[in-house]
Order: sequence, then structure tokens, then C-alpha cells
Amino acid sequence: MGSLYPHYEEENYSSNTANLLNPEEFRRQGHMIIDFIADYYQNMEKYPVLSQVQPDYLAQLLPKSAPNIPEPIETILHDIQQYIIPGITHWQSPNYFAYFPSSGSIAGFLGEVLSTGFNVLEFVTMDWLGQMLGLPQSFLFSGTGGGVIQGTTCEAILCTLVAARDQMLAKVGRENMGKLVIYGSDQTHSKVAGLECKNFRAIKTMRSTAFQLSAESLRTTIRLDVEAGLIPAFLCATIGTTSTTAVDPIRSLSEVTKEYGMWIHVDAAYAGSACICPEYRHFIDGAENVNSFSFNAHKWFFTTLDCCCLWVKDPGALTKSLSASAEFLKNNASDSKQVVDYKDWQITLSRRFRSMKLWLVLRSYGVENLRNFLRSHVKMAKRFQQLVESDNRFEVVVPRNFAMVCFRVLPTTLKKEPNGCKKTVNASGKIFMTHTIVEGIYVIRIAVGATLTEDKHVIKAWKVVQETVGGMLATI
Amino acid sequence: MGSLYPHYEEENYSSNTANLLNPEEFRRQGHMIIDFIADYYQNMEKYPVLSQVQPDYLAQLLPKSAPNIPEPIETILHDIQQYIIPGITHWQSPNYFAYFPSSGSIAGFLGEVLSTGFNVLEFVTMDWLGQMLGLPQSFLFSGTGGGVIQGTTCEAILCTLVAARDQMLAKVGRENMGKLVIYGSDQTHSKVAGLECKNFRAIKTMRSTAFQLSAESLRTTIRLDVEAGLIPAFLCATIGTTSTTAVDPIRSLSEVTKEYGMWIHVDAAYAGSACICPEYRHFIDGAENVNSFSFNAHKWFFTTLDCCCLWVKDPGALTKSLSASAEFLKNNASDSKQVVDYKDWQITLSRRFRSMKLWLVLRSYGVENLRNFLRSHVKMAKRFQQLVESDNRFEVVVPRNFAMVCFRVLPTTLKKEPNGCKKTVNASGKIFMTHTIVEGIYVIRIAVGATLTEDKHVIKAWKVVQETVGGMLATI
Repeated sequence: MGSLYPHYEEENYSSNTANLLNPEEFRRQGHMIIDFIADYYQNMEKYPVLSQVQPDYLAQLLPKSAPNIPEPIETILHDIQQYIIPGITHWQSPNYFAYFPSSGSIAGFLGEVLSTGFNVLEFVTMDWLGQMLGLPQSFLFSGTGGGVIQGTTCEAILCTLVAARDQMLAKVGRENMGKLVIYGSDQTHSKVAGLECKNFRAIKTMRSTAFQLSAESLRTTIRLDVEAGLIPAFLCATIGTTSTTAVDPIRSLSEVTKEYGMWIHVDAAYAGSACICPEYRHFIDGAENVNSFSFNAHKWFFTTLDCCCLWVKDPGALTKSLSASAEFLKNNASDSKQVVDYKDWQITLSRRFRSMKLWLVLRSYGVENLRNFLRSHVKMAKRFQQLVESDNRFEVVVPRNFAMVCFRVLPTTLKKEPNGCKKTVNASGKIFMTHTIVEGIYVIRIAVGATLTEDKHVIKAWKVVQETVGGMLATI
Repeated sequence: MGSLYPHYEEENYSSNTANLLNPEEFRRQGHMIIDFIADYYQNMEKYPVLSQVQPDYLAQLLPKSAPNIPEPIETILHDIQQYIIPGITHWQSPNYFAYFPSSGSIAGFLGEVLSTGFNVLEFVTMDWLGQMLGLPQSFLFSGTGGGVIQGTTCEAILCTLVAARDQMLAKVGRENMGKLVIYGSDQTHSKVAGLECKNFRAIKTMRSTAFQLSAESLRTTIRLDVEAGLIPAFLCATIGTTSTTAVDPIRSLSEVTKEYGMWIHVDAAYAGSACICPEYRHFIDGAENVNSFSFNAHKWFFTTLDCCCLWVKDPGALTKSLSASAEFLKNNASDSKQVVDYKDWQITLSRRFRSMKLWLVLRSYGVENLRNFLRSHVKMAKRFQQLVESDNRFEVVVPRNFAMVCFRVLPTTLKKEPNGCKKTVNASGKIFMTHTIVEGIYVIRIAVGATLTEDKHVIKAWKVVQETVGGMLATI
């Protein structure tokens, strides 16, 4: 096995095992890294927002195996600057308008750093945030429910699905497992909708009704399943779908699920954060009727990945399905039931201390400023929308609800290659947007929300779009 | 809704929305936090290792809702020092011997910090690490397999379970879902074994054979299931079980699973790291015959949570079951199949950039030093074992394989309250150990591996144990 496997004799190994947590060395290297990242943020606009390298470039540049001897932090930082940064798509760039934002902040970042050291605090933070969203007491620890920070929406939905499944099977008997049906719209979170599963119904939505899942369509679909001997078990409603930020009407949907004794989960991954503003709170009206509610603080809430906030009305339903109780995990505190034993609220046993960063974000910025940050993004998106509307070669495809605008080059303008515009725009490296296809229409999505984005970046983005289309028309 | 919901009029909101990623402010606050954490490590030994507060103390100390206006970093750090730190069980303390270690390091910590900024590099790092473990080429990207960093072992096992299930159902037909059976020993990872699932077999192991799962027991159990019309689908073998660090014999187990066309996963969560040392590599002999292999770098490999390394021989089996392909996720790079699209290798869609910290650990310390760090922990555990063996009031319950010693006060010494010793030891706050129960025997586990632990801490731990038992005998 070559040099990786030298002959080893006990007691004979080198004693060069310096203290891996030496405080002074930690201090020295820590300060270097803070400066390195501060410089990175300072120079952000100098980098092309979209990675300009070939997918396999890095494998060519890095050694094929780990070094046998230690390397100094200086060399490593040099390599990051030289090899890693050129390969990055800069999600924190002010010119980043793709997917959904991943709005970082100093507090979110430093909270992440701090959290690497400690672990408490989660239920206080989740109650704070639940209050900010105007969630009813039945979802808070100060009421009868509670919240937990999951890694991602996929994990949150998986946990609630398992709880819903077991709750329903307790009623109808475990032998009916194969009959349970899960519902959502055809705009539902892709990892749920993407499951190859004969018992998932992706109910059709339409542009004419802004891609909302209607209670009527849900009821019709459920009726057909019930007639076929199946058992409706779970609905995933979405506040701010990924394609077009559509909002499913929770109140009317919950009336249908109530009739059938189903679990209803609200996935507000993107748009949940906006609901801390009173003027957007109406989007989650009816939340008091649902079983669980999640939103991603790592999307549009100034907190680094991963930080998906999940509240449930009946924590017992979760823990019944997810609890682990091996002997070596027992201790006085968790036995006493005085503590929230979060390992029973999630798929995994180990967990990171994610609440620190969220707590730091809430405290460092305060509720009112957080609302204003979100409002400033909405305002920039409105500005972009007005620019699109003022140019008759373009159209806004669906009404804008939050800080994302879905637009397209009108087919009369650009007869072929509807996606040519986005490709050319992104290839420049100046700005980065993504696209979607709804009702066969190729739509460009500009998601405003990168923390560094200002008016000037949005205006420049629009200019780049206009120039690109102008250039394409000239070459036809 | 009180002061959280003041009247809002658009355009009227405060413009106090300072740049949340202002580089100079980032630099100032970042340096403060590095110093704060360096001080914490410097003072580590001054804190009682086990939290000395009541479970709900924090809720009493913190405000009931998030602040409306920003708070300075100075106030927040003051509160962390004042309120949070006293409630913490200090996993990085040199007196921490409970559960398994969570051995941090400067490189692991700073890698975590750096990774908050960027995202590439994972497959290079996973190939490096796979080589260090002597995994066959069939598990590496440079061969025909590949590795992915999951959050935790639970996620890794869940992913491989889903892949194994779908692979088997493709052969036997989806209607046979209810017939699939999963196997492990009664020492298997608690979140798997803890599933209330009629199709999981926790095969009995015994102290007399060091709690290893024998190929013979596996074969007998499988035969009974096959005779009952069931379908064996998945075996989880463990290298270093949580209770006693038992090692299942991969080679002979894999011969059984091969006969039945089953998936075999190796969970080396704790002990995998030791296998980078040539003298421990034999514990995973037979790895070339398994389908997947995982180990937790956040356990005993100087890397912060979460960082579970999973390798698979057939990445296609994973991605077939876990891929998501919504339109808005498509891009040229992933369509070209030139990149490893990790979202299809895991349950979740979003993912953190976990490879940076692992890469930094590998580079900053180098393979040879990493081996020596692990060896130094084993050596300290050996030392503790000798101390136990030299006192006839105690016994070592199972042979020590790695850096954990399972011991007990002999029943002849302490007739009642077998767990009294551990409780009294931990209550002092001086050291922290956990316990397990195997074959009805109450066993104290001392897991050496906290990065800051030195000989003197182990010797002190033994003195505390001796004094505690001495004190208990005196009071009888």
C-alpha cells in the first residue's frame, strides 16, 4: 500500500502530537481565517458570480492523496484562494439571483462559528421565532407544541411524514401501510414530488389561478382514492413554491384534510420568513388548523446552512415515531421529561447546535430590522418587475408575491431558443439567475435576497437581460 | 399582537438596514469571537465538565421574545458567558469520557468556519480518506465507486437502506415490500435497532464472544425468515459498537449476505478512524465484499459535527433511489454527468459544505500525525485498563479493542446500587462517563478521545473512581 502504510511498532511513534486545541494557536489561525473571509466578502464583486471552471478542474489541481505530514495554515489558505475560489459560484454575491437566496449575515456566520463550541438554547429560540410568525400558542413550547431545528426541509417533511403515517396506521392498522396516500400540488418541494411513489398525488395547478392548489381539486382527488379503497394520510401545502412562489390556501385546504383526519404540513421554506412582517402574515392564515409548519432560516433569513425550523402541534406524534432509547443514551435529565430530548424529534441521533446562529441573528438585528431587510428585498423585486413591465418585449408570467419575479421574453420577440437568454446572461458571469418551466412556458426567475444586493445590482441585472435580448435579436 | 405587530406602511420603514455582510464589521466581530472561543478553550478545565444546572434554567434567564431592536455583539457574548456556558456539558473537556469522544481540533473548527463561505472539494477529500482506510478502488471515485459526506450515521444508513430496498424490489417486485427483512446484532446503532419494526432482526450476541455478531447466528436467523416466506434484504454490520466497541466479522458475514443477494453495510461510526493505522486495519478486512461503508469523522477524527463519511460501491444504486430532477435544478454541469451531483446521494436537497473541515484536518495534521493522535488515545485507554486490572475491586468486562474501556465494580465489592458509582462520579462535575447494560451487567464506559485529554486526566479519572467506590464502601 506504499508510503501510507509504513511499518508500525507500538511506543515507537513520533511524539509530534501537538495540542490540537492549543488556545494560542487557535487564536492565531482563527484571526487569519476571519481576515481571509472578510477579504473574500470585500472582494466579492470582483469575482464572476457563476463558476467559470470545468467540473473536474479541481481534481487536476489537488494531490491524489492526503499529505503524510502537516501543512501550515498559510499554504492551505493560499490553495483555497488559488484553486477553490475560482471554482465557486458565489451565492453571497450581490449579483446572485438564482434558485432562492441564501442570505448570509455577520450574525448568522458568527453564530455558526460560536455554535461549533456549544449546545443549548434551541427551544427558547424556536418560541421566539414562532411568536414572530404569529404561530398560535398550540405550536409553541409556552403552549402545548414546540419547535425543532432540522437540517433541511427534506428532513422536516420526512419526520412529519413518518409521524403522520404512524398516527394513521394506529387508527387503521399497520397492515394498511400500502394504502396510505400523500398529496401535494405539482409545484410541491421537488424531493417529495420526485419520489417515485405510486401513492403520491401531484395535483395539477394552473397559471390562471397562480399555481395555487385548490381545495376543490384536492377534494376531488381524495374522493377518487377513497372510492378506490385507499386512505388519505398527508397533505403538504406550500407557501412560496420554488418555481413561482405560489401560495396554497391553508385555511380551505385544512377544511378538507380535517374531514378525512389527515395530517397537514405547511412547507413555507422560502416565504415563511416574509410572514414575520404583518403585511404578509395573511399568507399563513389558517395556520392554527395545521399539524406542522416549517421554514428555512438558511434561505431568506440571514442564517447559514443548515437551519430548517419545524414546529409541530403534537410533539408526541413525532417522538412516538422517532424516539431512540438505548441504555447508553439514558440520563437523569431526559428521564425526568423536564428537557426537550431533541434526538427524538428527528431522524438522526447526533445533532449540531444550530440554534446559536439563529439566536445571534435575532438578537443582533432585532425583529424590526429583520422585517426591514426583507422589505428592502421585496422593494427591489418590485422595482425589477416595473422594469420588466415597461419593456414590451417581456412579460411578467405570474403575479409576484414576495421578492422573486418570474418573467420571460415574449414568444413574439424571440421565436426560438427560449432559454438562450438565460444561458447567455449567466455565461457572462456578471449575474446569475435560474429558470423553470410551467405550463410549457420557459420562465426566468430572478430571486432577490442575497444580503449584499442593492438597487444598483438589480438595475444592472435588468440591463444585462435587455442587452442580451437586444444582442440576440440583432443576430437573427 | 402587541408590540411585535406595529402598524406598517410601505416606504415608511426605517432605513437602518446596515450592510449585514459589511467586511469591516465582519472583521471586527469575527476577531472578537475567535478570542472569545480561544479564551473558552484556555479556561476549559476551570468549568465542571458536566452541566450543573437545572434543565429549565435557561428559559428563566432569557427574554420571552426576540428583541425588536439590534443588540451589540458585546452584550450577546456577555450573555453567552453568563448564561449559556454554565449550562453546558463541555464535550471538549479533557475530563470528558462519556458516550464517544467528539474530538475537535483547530483545523476541524476553522474548516467549519471556512466552509460557511464556500462549497466544492468533497470527492477529492473522500478519495483521500478512502485511501487512508485502505478501502478498495471499487469504493473510490478514482475507481468505480465514490464517497459522500452525510450529516450522521442515521442518514447514511437510511440512504443505503432505501437503495438496498429498491434494488431488492427491482428483483422481486414492489408488491413484496412488506416481506423485506433487515438484520443487525442486538448491539447495532440505536436509531436503527430502535425502530419499532416487525421486519428488523436484532440478533443476539454474547459476552463470551465479545458481543460479535456471528455468521452462524446470522445464517440461522435468515433461514427461518426465508422458510417463513420473507426476503432478507439488508445487513448492518458494526465495527466498534456503542456499548462495548465490539467488532462484527465482516468477511464471514459477507459470505452469508452474498448467498442471499443482500446488501451489506458496515457502520464503523466510532472505530473507522482507527483503521487508518496499519495495526488496526485488520478490523475491516473483507471490506471489499460489502456494498457500503460509513464512519463518523465527527466522532474520533478531530472534525466538528456533522461529518459522516459514506462510501458506496455502486453509486447508481443510491442515486436511482434518491435523485431529484425538477426543472429549476437543471444546469449544464449536472446534465453533462461530469459532476458528482451530491443532492442525488442523500435524503436532502440542500447541503452544507462539510468537506472543507475534513480537508483542513487532513492537510493541517497529515496522515502520520493523525495516526499518532489516535494511538495516543489508545495508549491512555490501555493505561486506564491496567489501572482497573490492578485493583481487585474492579473488573474489565470485555476486551478493549480501541480507546474505550468497559469496566465495573465487582458485585462482591458493591452488592447493591451498581449504578451508584457512575452517578456519584459524574455528579462531582470533575469527570464525565456514561454507562451501558450488557447481559444484565451494569458497565461503566470510559471513552478516551477528547482532544485535550492527557495522561494526567486519565489518572485523575481513575482516582475519582477509586475514591468514589472507597467512599461508598465506607458508608455501607
